[in-house]
Amino acid sequence: MKFIPKLPFKEDLKIEGFESIDLQEFCSRDWSKYEPKSPYFPHKLEFYVLLIITKGSVRHKVDLKEYLVNENECLIISPNQIHALNSESEYHGHFFLFTKEYLLNYFTPSTFFHISQLFNYHMFHPVYQLDECMMDYAGRVASEYIYSPYILKNQIISSLFSIILYKLNNRNLLIQSNQNLKQGFDLFEKFKNLIEEEYNKSRNVNDYADQMNISYKHLNEISKRFTNRTAKEFLDDYIILEIKRKLSSTSLSVKEICFETGFDEPTNFVKYFKKATGITPLEFRAAIK
Amino acid sequence: MKFIPKLPFKEDLKIEGFESIDLQEFCSRDWSKYEPKSPYFPHKLEFYVLLIITKGSVRHKVDLKEYLVNENECLIISPNQIHALNSESEYHGHFFLFTKEYLLNYFTPSTFFHISQLFNYHMFHPVYQLDECMMDYAGRVASEYIYSPYILKNQIISSLFSIILYKLNNRNLLIQSNQNLKQGFDLFEKFKNLIEEEYNKSRNVNDYADQMNISYKHLNEISKRFTNRTAKEFLDDYIILEIKRKLSSTSLSVKEICFETGFDEPTNFVKYFKKATGITPLEFRAAIK
Repeated sequence: MKFIPKLPFKEDLKIEGFESIDLQEFCSRDWSKYEPKSPYFPHKLEFYVLLIITKGSVRHKVDLKEYLVNENECLIISPNQIHALNSESEYHGHFFLFTKEYLLNYFTPSTFFHISQLFNYHMFHPVYQLDECMMDYAGRVASEYIYSPYILKNQIISSLFSIILYKLNNRNLLIQSNQNLKQGFDLFEKFKNLIEEEYNKSRNVNDYADQMNISYKHLNEISKRFTNRTAKEFLDDYIILEIKRKLSSTSLSVKEICFETGFDEPTNFVKYFKKATGITPLEFRAAIK
Repeated sequence: MKFIPKLPFKEDLKIEGFESIDLQEFCSRDWSKYEPKSPYFPHKLEFYVLLIITKGSVRHKVDLKEYLVNENECLIISPNQIHALNSESEYHGHFFLFTKEYLLNYFTPSTFFHISQLFNYHMFHPVYQLDECMMDYAGRVASEYIYSPYILKNQIISSLFSIILYKLNNRNLLIQSNQNLKQGFDLFEKFKNLIEEEYNKSRNVNDYADQMNISYKHLNEISKRFTNRTAKEFLDDYIILEIKRKLSSTSLSVKEICFETGFDEPTNFVKYFKKATGITPLEFRAAIK
Protein backbone atom coordinates (compact mmCIF):
# COMPACT_ATOMS: atom_id res chain seq x y z
CA MET A 1 0.00 0.00 0.00
CA LYS A 2 1.30 3.33 -0.96
CA PHE A 3 1.73 5.79 1.86
CA ILE A 4 0.37 9.24 1.03
CA PRO A 5 1.84 11.61 3.56
CA LYS A 6 -0.41 14.34 4.87
CA LEU A 7 1.61 17.44 5.56
CA PRO A 8 0.45 19.92 8.19
CA PHE A 9 0.98 23.65 7.97
CA LYS A 10 4.22 24.99 9.45
CA GLU A 11 3.80 26.63 12.80
CA ASP A 12 6.77 28.96 13.20
CA LEU A 13 6.05 31.26 10.31
CA LYS A 14 6.45 35.00 9.91
CA ILE A 15 2.70 35.22 9.48
CA GLU A 16 0.45 32.72 11.19
CA GLY A 17 -1.29 30.62 8.58
CA PHE A 18 0.41 32.15 5.52
CA GLU A 19 3.65 31.31 3.76
CA SER A 20 5.23 32.65 0.60
CA ILE A 21 7.92 30.44 -0.95
CA ASP A 22 10.15 31.10 -3.93
CA LEU A 23 9.62 28.17 -6.27
CA GLN A 24 13.15 28.09 -7.64
CA GLU A 25 14.67 28.06 -4.17
CA PHE A 26 12.15 25.42 -3.11
CA CYS A 27 13.03 23.14 -6.03
CA SER A 28 16.76 23.52 -5.44
CA ARG A 29 16.52 22.07 -1.93
CA ASP A 30 17.71 18.50 -1.45
CA TRP A 31 14.41 16.73 -0.95
CA SER A 32 15.76 13.17 -1.35
CA LYS A 33 16.31 12.76 2.37
CA TYR A 34 12.65 13.59 3.06
CA GLU A 35 11.20 10.87 0.81
CA PRO A 36 8.41 9.86 0.74
CA LYS A 37 7.55 13.19 2.33
CA SER A 38 9.15 15.01 -0.57
CA PRO A 39 6.92 17.32 -2.65
CA TYR A 40 7.78 15.17 -5.69
CA PHE A 41 5.91 12.22 -4.16
CA PRO A 42 2.11 12.22 -4.08
CA HIS A 43 0.99 13.91 -0.88
CA LYS A 44 -1.91 15.70 0.68
CA LEU A 45 -1.71 19.09 2.29
CA GLU A 46 -3.88 20.38 5.08
CA PHE A 47 -3.90 23.85 3.57
CA TYR A 48 -4.62 25.83 0.41
CA VAL A 49 -1.99 26.36 -2.26
CA LEU A 50 -1.57 28.85 -5.09
CA LEU A 51 1.22 27.86 -7.47
CA ILE A 52 2.05 30.80 -9.73
CA ILE A 53 4.48 30.31 -12.62
CA THR A 54 6.52 33.37 -13.62
CA LYS A 55 8.88 31.58 -16.05
CA GLY A 56 8.82 28.23 -17.80
CA SER A 57 6.03 25.75 -17.24
CA VAL A 58 5.27 22.77 -15.05
CA ARG A 59 3.15 19.65 -15.27
CA HIS A 60 1.53 19.11 -11.92
CA LYS A 61 -0.59 16.14 -10.89
CA VAL A 62 -3.64 16.92 -8.78
CA ASP A 63 -5.99 14.12 -7.80
CA LEU A 64 -4.23 11.86 -10.28
CA LYS A 65 -4.90 14.19 -13.19
CA GLU A 66 -2.07 16.10 -14.85
CA TYR A 67 -2.36 19.84 -15.40
CA LEU A 68 0.00 21.95 -17.47
CA VAL A 69 0.68 25.31 -15.84
CA ASN A 70 2.35 27.83 -18.14
CA GLU A 71 4.03 31.16 -17.57
CA ASN A 72 1.59 33.71 -16.07
CA GLU A 73 -0.76 30.96 -14.96
CA CYS A 74 -1.77 29.76 -11.58
CA LEU A 75 -2.81 26.36 -10.25
CA ILE A 76 -5.12 26.20 -7.27
CA ILE A 77 -4.93 23.22 -4.94
CA SER A 78 -7.38 22.67 -2.11
CA PRO A 79 -6.79 20.92 1.21
CA ASN A 80 -6.80 17.13 0.92
CA GLN A 81 -6.27 16.98 -2.83
CA ILE A 82 -3.47 14.56 -3.63
CA HIS A 83 -0.71 16.16 -5.65
CA ALA A 84 2.94 15.95 -6.63
CA LEU A 85 5.40 18.41 -8.09
CA ASN A 86 7.12 17.52 -11.33
CA SER A 87 10.91 17.48 -11.15
CA GLU A 88 11.62 17.37 -14.86
CA SER A 89 11.10 20.89 -16.09
CA GLU A 90 12.69 24.23 -15.24
CA TYR A 91 10.34 26.81 -13.81
CA HIS A 92 10.29 29.89 -11.60
CA GLY A 93 7.44 31.29 -9.59
CA HIS A 94 5.74 31.51 -6.25
CA PHE A 95 4.09 29.13 -3.84
CA PHE A 96 1.52 30.80 -1.62
CA LEU A 97 0.29 28.51 1.14
CA PHE A 98 -2.44 29.44 3.59
CA THR A 99 -4.88 27.89 5.99
CA LYS A 100 -8.62 28.28 6.34
CA GLU A 101 -7.98 29.96 9.70
CA TYR A 102 -5.88 32.56 7.89
CA LEU A 103 -8.76 33.38 5.55
CA LEU A 104 -11.15 33.62 8.48
CA ASN A 105 -8.80 35.83 10.50
CA TYR A 106 -7.83 38.32 7.86
CA PHE A 107 -10.89 38.48 5.63
CA THR A 108 -14.45 39.55 6.28
CA PRO A 109 -17.11 36.83 5.99
CA SER A 110 -18.26 38.21 2.64
CA THR A 111 -14.69 38.12 1.28
CA PHE A 112 -14.35 34.57 2.49
CA PHE A 113 -17.56 33.68 0.72
CA HIS A 114 -16.45 35.35 -2.52
CA ILE A 115 -13.14 33.54 -2.73
CA SER A 116 -14.10 30.12 -1.40
CA GLN A 117 -15.48 29.38 -4.86
CA LEU A 118 -11.93 29.33 -6.15
CA PHE A 119 -11.38 26.14 -4.24
CA ASN A 120 -14.50 24.41 -5.48
CA TYR A 121 -12.55 22.05 -7.71
CA HIS A 122 -15.50 20.02 -8.91
CA MET A 123 -17.01 23.12 -10.43
CA PHE A 124 -14.11 25.06 -11.87
CA HIS A 125 -10.95 24.25 -13.78
CA PRO A 126 -8.04 24.76 -11.36
CA VAL A 127 -5.72 26.55 -13.79
CA TYR A 128 -6.18 30.32 -14.11
CA GLN A 129 -4.56 32.95 -16.29
CA LEU A 130 -3.05 36.03 -14.66
CA ASP A 131 -2.66 39.36 -16.40
CA GLU A 132 0.36 41.63 -15.94
CA CYS A 133 -1.26 43.48 -13.05
CA MET A 134 -2.05 40.26 -11.16
CA MET A 135 1.48 38.97 -11.71
CA ASP A 136 2.71 42.27 -10.32
CA TYR A 137 0.61 41.79 -7.17
CA ALA A 138 1.98 38.25 -6.79
CA GLY A 139 5.50 39.67 -6.90
CA ARG A 140 4.54 42.30 -4.34
CA VAL A 141 3.15 39.67 -1.95
CA ALA A 142 6.41 37.73 -2.22
CA SER A 143 8.56 40.80 -1.68
CA GLU A 144 6.49 42.27 1.17
CA TYR A 145 6.67 38.82 2.80
CA ILE A 146 10.46 39.02 2.90
CA TYR A 147 11.27 42.70 3.09
CA SER A 148 8.28 44.63 4.41
CA PRO A 149 9.34 47.09 7.11
CA TYR A 150 5.74 47.83 8.06
CA ILE A 151 4.26 47.06 11.46
CA LEU A 152 0.99 46.09 9.79
CA LYS A 153 2.87 43.89 7.31
CA ASN A 154 0.48 40.97 7.82
CA GLN A 155 -2.50 43.13 6.99
CA ILE A 156 -0.75 44.61 3.96
CA ILE A 157 0.08 41.15 2.62
CA SER A 158 -3.42 39.82 3.20
CA SER A 159 -4.89 42.83 1.35
CA LEU A 160 -2.52 42.32 -1.59
CA PHE A 161 -3.20 38.61 -1.59
CA SER A 162 -6.96 39.11 -1.48
CA ILE A 163 -6.74 41.25 -4.64
CA ILE A 164 -5.18 38.31 -6.49
CA LEU A 165 -7.91 35.97 -5.24
CA TYR A 166 -10.69 38.43 -6.17
CA LYS A 167 -9.31 38.87 -9.66
CA LEU A 168 -8.78 35.13 -10.17
CA ASN A 169 -12.35 34.40 -9.18
CA ASN A 170 -13.68 36.85 -11.76
CA ARG A 171 -13.69 34.09 -14.38
CA ASN A 172 -15.99 31.94 -12.23
CA LEU A 173 -18.22 34.85 -11.27
CA LEU A 174 -18.66 35.85 -14.91
CA ILE A 175 -20.15 32.44 -15.60
CA GLN A 176 -22.59 32.88 -12.76
CA SER A 177 -23.45 36.52 -13.36
CA ASN A 178 -24.35 35.92 -16.96
CA GLN A 179 -28.14 36.06 -16.85
CA ASN A 180 -28.47 33.26 -19.39
CA LEU A 181 -26.15 31.03 -17.44
CA LYS A 182 -27.10 32.02 -13.90
CA GLN A 183 -30.15 29.82 -13.42
CA GLY A 184 -28.50 26.83 -15.02
CA PHE A 185 -25.42 27.31 -12.91
CA ASP A 186 -27.43 27.34 -9.70
CA LEU A 187 -29.03 24.05 -10.74
CA PHE A 188 -25.69 22.56 -11.66
CA GLU A 189 -24.27 23.57 -8.31
CA LYS A 190 -27.26 21.93 -6.62
CA PHE A 191 -26.58 18.76 -8.62
CA LYS A 192 -22.92 18.75 -7.53
CA ASN A 193 -23.89 19.29 -3.88
CA LEU A 194 -26.43 16.48 -4.04
CA ILE A 195 -23.78 14.13 -5.47
CA GLU A 196 -21.43 15.06 -2.64
CA GLU A 197 -24.07 13.96 -0.13
CA GLU A 198 -25.58 11.00 -1.93
CA TYR A 199 -23.08 9.46 -4.34
CA ASN A 200 -22.83 6.36 -2.16
CA LYS A 201 -26.62 5.95 -2.20
CA SER A 202 -27.35 6.22 -5.91
CA ARG A 203 -25.55 6.12 -9.25
CA ASN A 204 -28.77 6.73 -11.14
CA VAL A 205 -29.10 10.25 -12.56
CA ASN A 206 -32.92 9.92 -12.47
CA ASP A 207 -32.78 9.89 -8.66
CA TYR A 208 -30.91 13.21 -8.68
CA ALA A 209 -33.23 14.79 -11.27
CA ASP A 210 -36.25 13.69 -9.19
CA GLN A 211 -34.84 15.25 -6.04
CA MET A 212 -34.19 18.46 -7.93
CA ASN A 213 -37.70 18.45 -9.42
CA ILE A 214 -36.36 18.71 -12.97
CA SER A 215 -36.34 16.25 -15.86
CA TYR A 216 -33.44 13.93 -16.69
CA LYS A 217 -33.15 15.73 -20.03
CA HIS A 218 -32.90 19.18 -18.41
CA LEU A 219 -30.26 18.01 -15.92
CA ASN A 220 -28.31 16.49 -18.77
CA GLU A 221 -28.36 19.73 -20.75
CA ILE A 222 -27.12 21.68 -17.75
CA SER A 223 -24.30 19.25 -17.04
CA LYS A 224 -23.19 19.40 -20.67
CA ARG A 225 -23.27 23.19 -20.64
CA PHE A 226 -20.88 23.51 -17.69
CA THR A 227 -18.72 20.40 -17.97
CA ASN A 228 -19.03 19.14 -21.54
CA ARG A 229 -20.05 15.85 -19.98
CA THR A 230 -23.46 14.21 -19.58
CA ALA A 231 -24.93 14.14 -16.08
CA LYS A 232 -24.16 10.41 -15.91
CA GLU A 233 -20.54 10.99 -16.96
CA PHE A 234 -20.15 13.78 -14.38
CA LEU A 235 -21.62 11.53 -11.66
CA ASP A 236 -19.41 8.58 -12.64
CA ASP A 237 -16.27 10.74 -12.79
CA TYR A 238 -17.07 12.00 -9.32
CA ILE A 239 -17.48 8.48 -7.93
CA ILE A 240 -14.37 7.15 -9.68
CA LEU A 241 -12.31 10.01 -8.21
CA GLU A 242 -13.60 9.18 -4.73
CA ILE A 243 -12.68 5.53 -5.22
CA LYS A 244 -9.21 6.41 -6.54
CA ARG A 245 -8.63 8.66 -3.54
CA LYS A 246 -9.55 5.89 -1.16
CA LEU A 247 -7.36 3.41 -3.03
CA SER A 248 -4.38 5.72 -3.05
CA SER A 249 -4.58 7.36 0.33
CA THR A 250 -6.09 4.79 2.71
CA SER A 251 -5.25 1.21 3.62
CA LEU A 252 -8.88 0.10 3.27
CA SER A 253 -9.38 -3.17 1.37
CA VAL A 254 -11.11 -3.14 -2.02
CA LYS A 255 -14.13 -4.77 -0.34
CA GLU A 256 -14.30 -2.05 2.30
CA ILE A 257 -14.04 0.69 -0.31
CA CYS A 258 -16.71 -1.10 -2.35
CA PHE A 259 -19.22 -0.90 0.51
CA GLU A 260 -18.16 2.61 1.55
CA THR A 261 -18.85 3.98 -1.91
CA GLY A 262 -22.29 2.41 -2.09
CA PHE A 263 -21.81 -0.81 -4.08
CA ASP A 264 -23.70 -3.93 -3.04
CA GLU A 265 -20.99 -6.36 -3.98
CA PRO A 266 -17.34 -6.32 -5.09
CA THR A 267 -17.93 -7.85 -8.54
CA ASN A 268 -20.06 -4.91 -9.65
CA PHE A 269 -17.65 -2.51 -8.00
CA VAL A 270 -14.63 -3.91 -9.88
CA LYS A 271 -16.59 -3.99 -13.16
CA TYR A 272 -17.66 -0.35 -12.69
CA PHE A 273 -14.11 0.75 -11.94
CA LYS A 274 -12.58 -1.22 -14.83
CA LYS A 275 -15.12 0.12 -17.30
CA ALA A 276 -14.13 3.69 -16.40
CA THR A 277 -10.37 3.28 -16.01
CA GLY A 278 -9.38 0.19 -17.99
CA ILE A 279 -7.80 -1.45 -14.94
CA THR A 280 -9.01 -3.07 -11.74
CA PRO A 281 -8.85 -1.30 -8.35
CA LEU A 282 -5.94 -3.52 -7.26
CA GLU A 283 -4.05 -2.85 -10.49
CA PHE A 284 -4.61 0.88 -9.91
CA ARG A 285 -3.27 0.62 -6.38
CA ALA A 286 -0.22 -1.30 -7.61
CA ALA A 287 0.39 1.16 -10.45
CA ILE A 288 0.71 4.22 -8.27
CA LYS A 289 2.98 2.52 -5.75
CA MET B 1 -23.37 84.55 11.86
CA LYS B 2 -21.44 82.53 9.42
CA PHE B 3 -23.18 79.51 8.01
CA ILE B 4 -20.96 76.46 7.93
CA PRO B 5 -22.61 73.96 5.61
CA LYS B 6 -22.51 70.34 6.61
CA LEU B 7 -22.30 68.17 3.53
CA PRO B 8 -23.61 64.62 3.58
CA PHE B 9 -22.12 61.75 1.64
CA LYS B 10 -23.45 61.21 -1.88
CA GLU B 11 -25.88 58.37 -2.20
CA ASP B 12 -25.81 57.34 -5.83
CA LEU B 13 -22.19 56.28 -6.02
CA LYS B 14 -20.50 53.44 -7.85
CA ILE B 15 -19.48 52.05 -4.48
CA GLU B 16 -21.65 52.66 -1.46
CA GLY B 17 -19.78 54.84 1.00
CA PHE B 18 -16.64 55.37 -1.12
CA GLU B 19 -15.80 57.96 -3.73
CA SER B 20 -12.64 58.66 -5.68
CA ILE B 21 -12.43 62.11 -7.26
CA ASP B 22 -9.77 63.55 -9.53
CA LEU B 23 -8.62 66.74 -7.85
CA GLN B 24 -7.90 68.63 -11.06
CA GLU B 25 -11.31 67.83 -12.50
CA PHE B 26 -12.90 68.73 -9.16
CA CYS B 27 -11.18 72.13 -9.05
CA SER B 28 -12.11 72.92 -12.62
CA ARG B 29 -15.83 72.68 -11.89
CA ASP B 30 -17.76 75.92 -11.59
CA TRP B 31 -18.40 76.02 -7.87
CA SER B 32 -19.52 79.66 -7.71
CA LYS B 33 -23.17 78.74 -8.10
CA TYR B 34 -22.97 76.44 -5.07
CA GLU B 35 -21.70 79.09 -2.65
CA PRO B 36 -21.61 78.95 0.32
CA LYS B 37 -21.74 75.20 -0.22
CA SER B 38 -18.62 75.39 -2.36
CA PRO B 39 -15.56 73.44 -1.21
CA TYR B 40 -13.67 76.77 -1.11
CA PHE B 41 -15.90 77.96 1.74
CA PRO B 42 -15.43 76.55 5.22
CA HIS B 43 -17.59 73.46 5.55
CA LYS B 44 -17.96 70.30 7.51
CA LEU B 45 -18.21 66.87 5.99
CA GLU B 46 -19.99 63.90 7.44
CA PHE B 47 -17.31 61.56 6.12
CA TYR B 48 -13.57 60.88 6.06
CA VAL B 49 -11.30 62.45 3.47
CA LEU B 50 -7.84 61.62 2.15
CA LEU B 51 -6.43 64.40 0.01
CA ILE B 52 -3.38 63.13 -1.87
CA ILE B 53 -1.26 65.56 -3.88
CA THR B 54 0.51 64.13 -6.93
CA LYS B 55 1.74 67.44 -8.37
CA GLY B 56 2.13 70.94 -6.97
CA SER B 57 1.09 71.77 -3.45
CA VAL B 58 -1.91 73.15 -1.61
CA ARG B 59 -2.56 75.11 1.56
CA HIS B 60 -5.60 73.64 3.21
CA LYS B 61 -7.34 74.96 6.29
CA VAL B 62 -8.55 72.36 8.76
CA ASP B 63 -10.18 73.48 11.99
CA LEU B 64 -8.97 76.99 11.31
CA LYS B 65 -5.34 75.95 11.06
CA GLU B 66 -3.52 76.01 7.74
CA TYR B 67 -1.58 72.97 6.55
CA LEU B 68 0.77 72.88 3.59
CA VAL B 69 0.40 69.65 1.63
CA ASN B 70 3.20 69.06 -0.85
CA GLU B 71 3.67 66.63 -3.73
CA ASN B 72 3.56 63.00 -2.52
CA GLU B 73 1.89 64.01 0.71
CA CYS B 74 -1.53 63.33 2.07
CA LEU B 75 -3.84 65.30 4.34
CA ILE B 76 -6.31 63.41 6.47
CA ILE B 77 -9.57 65.07 7.43
CA SER B 78 -12.04 63.52 9.86
CA PRO B 79 -15.81 63.91 9.95
CA ASN B 80 -16.94 67.23 11.46
CA GLN B 81 -13.63 69.00 11.07
CA ILE B 82 -14.18 72.37 9.45
CA HIS B 83 -12.13 72.83 6.32
CA ALA B 84 -11.84 74.72 3.07
CA LEU B 85 -9.94 74.14 -0.15
CA ASN B 86 -7.53 76.78 -1.34
CA SER B 87 -8.23 78.10 -4.81
CA GLU B 88 -4.96 79.95 -5.35
CA SER B 89 -2.45 77.29 -6.23
CA GLU B 90 -2.26 74.70 -9.02
CA TYR B 91 -2.29 71.11 -7.87
CA HIS B 92 -3.19 67.63 -9.07
CA GLY B 93 -4.11 64.61 -7.04
CA HIS B 94 -6.86 62.49 -5.60
CA PHE B 95 -9.70 62.95 -3.19
CA PHE B 96 -10.75 59.72 -1.51
CA LEU B 97 -13.95 60.12 0.47
CA PHE B 98 -15.47 57.37 2.59
CA THR B 99 -17.91 56.84 5.40
CA LYS B 100 -17.54 55.01 8.68
CA GLU B 101 -20.10 52.50 7.40
CA TYR B 102 -17.80 51.80 4.48
CA LEU B 103 -14.93 50.98 6.83
CA LEU B 104 -17.18 48.75 8.90
CA ASN B 105 -18.57 46.95 5.85
CA TYR B 106 -15.36 46.25 4.02
CA PHE B 107 -12.81 45.87 6.79
CA THR B 108 -12.49 43.41 9.63
CA PRO B 109 -12.84 44.85 13.15
CA SER B 110 -9.09 44.59 13.71
CA THR B 111 -8.39 46.50 10.49
CA PHE B 112 -10.86 49.15 11.54
CA PHE B 113 -9.08 49.42 14.88
CA HIS B 114 -5.67 49.69 13.24
CA ILE B 115 -6.62 52.49 10.91
CA SER B 116 -8.97 54.50 13.11
CA GLN B 117 -5.87 56.01 14.72
CA LEU B 118 -5.21 57.84 11.50
CA PHE B 119 -8.24 59.98 12.21
CA ASN B 120 -7.29 60.79 15.77
CA TYR B 121 -6.40 64.37 14.92
CA HIS B 122 -5.63 65.49 18.46
CA MET B 123 -2.85 62.93 18.66
CA PHE B 124 -1.23 62.91 15.25
CA HIS B 125 -0.23 65.50 12.70
CA PRO B 126 -2.68 65.18 9.79
CA VAL B 127 -0.10 65.46 6.98
CA TYR B 128 1.64 62.24 5.93
CA GLN B 129 4.38 61.50 3.45
CA LEU B 130 3.80 58.80 0.83
CA ASP B 131 6.58 56.82 -0.81
CA GLU B 132 6.55 55.83 -4.48
CA CYS B 133 4.81 52.54 -3.77
CA MET B 134 2.01 54.20 -1.80
CA MET B 135 1.53 56.81 -4.52
CA ASP B 136 1.30 53.92 -6.97
CA TYR B 137 -1.48 52.32 -4.90
CA ALA B 138 -3.32 55.65 -4.77
CA GLY B 139 -3.20 55.80 -8.58
CA ARG B 140 -4.45 52.21 -8.76
CA VAL B 141 -7.41 52.98 -6.49
CA ALA B 142 -8.36 55.92 -8.72
CA SER B 143 -8.02 53.92 -11.92
CA GLU B 144 -9.80 50.78 -10.62
CA TYR B 145 -12.59 53.11 -9.45
CA ILE B 146 -13.15 54.30 -13.01
CA TYR B 147 -12.09 51.42 -15.22
CA SER B 148 -12.18 48.19 -13.24
CA PRO B 149 -13.91 45.44 -15.23
CA TYR B 150 -14.00 43.12 -12.23
CA ILE B 151 -17.19 41.89 -10.61
CA LEU B 152 -15.53 42.16 -7.19
CA LYS B 153 -14.32 45.68 -8.03
CA ASN B 154 -15.54 47.07 -4.68
CA GLN B 155 -13.56 44.48 -2.78
CA ILE B 156 -10.47 45.06 -4.92
CA ILE B 157 -10.63 48.81 -4.32
CA SER B 158 -11.16 48.42 -0.57
CA SER B 159 -8.14 46.09 -0.38
CA LEU B 160 -5.97 48.54 -2.32
CA PHE B 161 -7.23 51.41 -0.24
CA SER B 162 -6.61 49.57 3.01
CA ILE B 163 -2.95 49.09 2.02
CA ILE B 164 -2.56 52.87 1.77
CA LEU B 165 -4.17 53.35 5.19
CA TYR B 166 -2.02 50.62 6.78
CA LYS B 167 1.15 52.14 5.38
CA LEU B 168 0.16 55.68 6.38
CA ASN B 169 -0.52 54.60 9.94
CA ASN B 170 2.94 53.07 10.22
CA ARG B 171 4.36 56.42 11.38
CA ASN B 172 1.91 56.54 14.29
CA LEU B 173 2.41 52.89 15.18
CA LEU B 174 6.18 53.35 15.25
CA ILE B 175 5.78 55.96 17.96
CA GLN B 176 3.68 53.60 20.02
CA SER B 177 5.70 50.45 19.42
CA ASN B 178 8.94 52.08 20.52
CA GLN B 179 9.45 50.54 23.94
CA ASN B 180 10.74 53.80 25.39
CA LEU B 181 7.78 55.74 24.11
CA LYS B 182 5.04 53.15 24.56
CA GLN B 183 4.22 53.72 28.23
CA GLY B 184 4.35 57.48 27.88
CA PHE B 185 2.16 57.35 24.82
CA ASP B 186 -0.50 55.33 26.64
CA LEU B 187 -0.53 57.94 29.41
CA PHE B 188 -0.71 60.76 26.91
CA GLU B 189 -3.64 59.11 25.18
CA LYS B 190 -5.36 58.73 28.56
CA PHE B 191 -4.79 62.46 29.17
CA LYS B 192 -6.31 63.35 25.81
CA ASN B 193 -9.32 61.10 26.45
CA LEU B 194 -9.84 62.64 29.89
CA ILE B 195 -9.77 66.13 28.37
CA GLU B 196 -12.37 65.06 25.83
CA GLU B 197 -14.69 64.05 28.66
CA GLU B 198 -13.92 66.73 31.22
CA TYR B 199 -12.64 69.87 29.52
CA ASN B 200 -15.82 71.72 30.47
CA LYS B 201 -15.39 70.71 34.11
CA SER B 202 -11.77 71.70 34.73
CA ARG B 203 -9.01 73.76 33.12
CA ASN B 204 -6.59 72.83 35.88
CA VAL B 205 -3.95 70.30 34.84
CA ASN B 206 -3.59 69.18 38.48
CA ASP B 207 -7.11 67.73 38.35
CA TYR B 208 -6.15 65.61 35.33
CA ALA B 209 -2.86 64.47 36.87
CA ASP B 210 -4.73 63.48 40.05
CA GLN B 211 -7.27 61.43 38.14
CA MET B 212 -4.44 59.69 36.30
CA ASN B 213 -2.54 59.03 39.56
CA ILE B 214 0.60 60.70 38.26
CA SER B 215 2.34 63.92 39.23
CA TYR B 216 1.83 67.26 37.46
CA LYS B 217 5.51 67.16 36.53
CA HIS B 218 5.26 63.70 34.96
CA LEU B 219 2.16 64.65 32.95
CA ASN B 220 3.94 67.76 31.77
CA GLU B 221 6.97 65.79 30.58
CA ILE B 222 4.76 63.40 28.63
CA SER B 223 2.81 66.19 26.99
CA LYS B 224 6.02 67.89 25.94
CA ARG B 225 7.42 64.67 24.54
CA PHE B 226 4.49 64.08 22.18
CA THR B 227 3.28 67.59 21.40
CA ASN B 228 6.15 69.96 22.20
CA ARG B 229 3.64 71.75 24.41
CA THR B 230 3.17 71.74 28.18
CA ALA B 231 0.15 69.90 29.53
CA LYS B 232 -1.51 73.25 30.26
CA GLU B 233 -0.85 74.48 26.74
CA PHE B 234 -2.25 71.25 25.25
CA LEU B 235 -5.36 71.53 27.43
CA ASP B 236 -5.88 75.21 26.56
CA ASP B 237 -5.39 74.57 22.84
CA TYR B 238 -8.00 71.84 23.04
CA ILE B 239 -10.50 74.13 24.76
CA ILE B 240 -9.85 77.08 22.43
CA LEU B 241 -10.43 74.82 19.42
CA GLU B 242 -13.73 73.67 20.88
CA ILE B 243 -14.77 77.28 21.46
CA LYS B 244 -13.73 78.31 17.94
CA ARG B 245 -15.75 75.44 16.51
CA LYS B 246 -18.82 76.50 18.39
CA LEU B 247 -18.32 80.13 17.37
CA SER B 248 -17.89 79.28 13.72
CA SER B 249 -20.35 76.49 13.21
CA THR B 250 -23.27 77.17 15.57
CA SER B 251 -25.53 80.12 16.19
CA LEU B 252 -25.10 79.90 19.98
CA SER B 253 -24.48 83.21 21.72
CA VAL B 254 -21.12 83.91 23.35
CA LYS B 255 -22.82 83.53 26.74
CA GLU B 256 -24.23 80.14 25.82
CA ILE B 257 -20.86 78.94 24.54
CA CYS B 258 -19.28 80.29 27.73
CA PHE B 259 -21.46 78.08 29.92
CA GLU B 260 -21.29 75.09 27.56
CA THR B 261 -17.51 75.05 27.70
CA GLY B 262 -17.42 75.20 31.48
CA PHE B 263 -16.85 78.88 32.31
CA ASP B 264 -18.68 80.43 35.27
CA GLU B 265 -19.12 83.84 33.72
CA PRO B 266 -18.58 85.54 30.37
CA THR B 267 -15.88 88.00 31.57
CA ASN B 268 -13.49 85.16 32.36
CA PHE B 269 -14.45 83.38 29.18
CA VAL B 270 -13.68 86.38 26.98
CA LYS B 271 -10.42 87.05 28.87
CA TYR B 272 -9.36 83.38 28.42
CA PHE B 273 -10.14 83.45 24.71
CA LYS B 274 -8.45 86.80 24.12
CA LYS B 275 -5.31 85.73 25.95
CA ALA B 276 -4.97 82.72 23.65
CA THR B 277 -6.00 84.26 20.35
CA GLY B 278 -5.46 88.01 20.66
CA ILE B 279 -9.08 88.75 19.81
CA THR B 280 -12.45 88.42 21.51
CA PRO B 281 -14.95 85.66 20.63
CA LEU B 282 -17.18 88.15 18.81
CA GLU B 283 -14.24 89.53 16.86
CA PHE B 284 -13.32 85.97 15.91
CA ARG B 285 -16.84 85.27 14.72
CA ALA B 286 -16.85 88.49 12.69
CA ALA B 287 -13.41 87.76 11.21
CA ILE B 288 -14.35 84.42 9.69
CA LYS B 289 -17.62 85.71 8.23
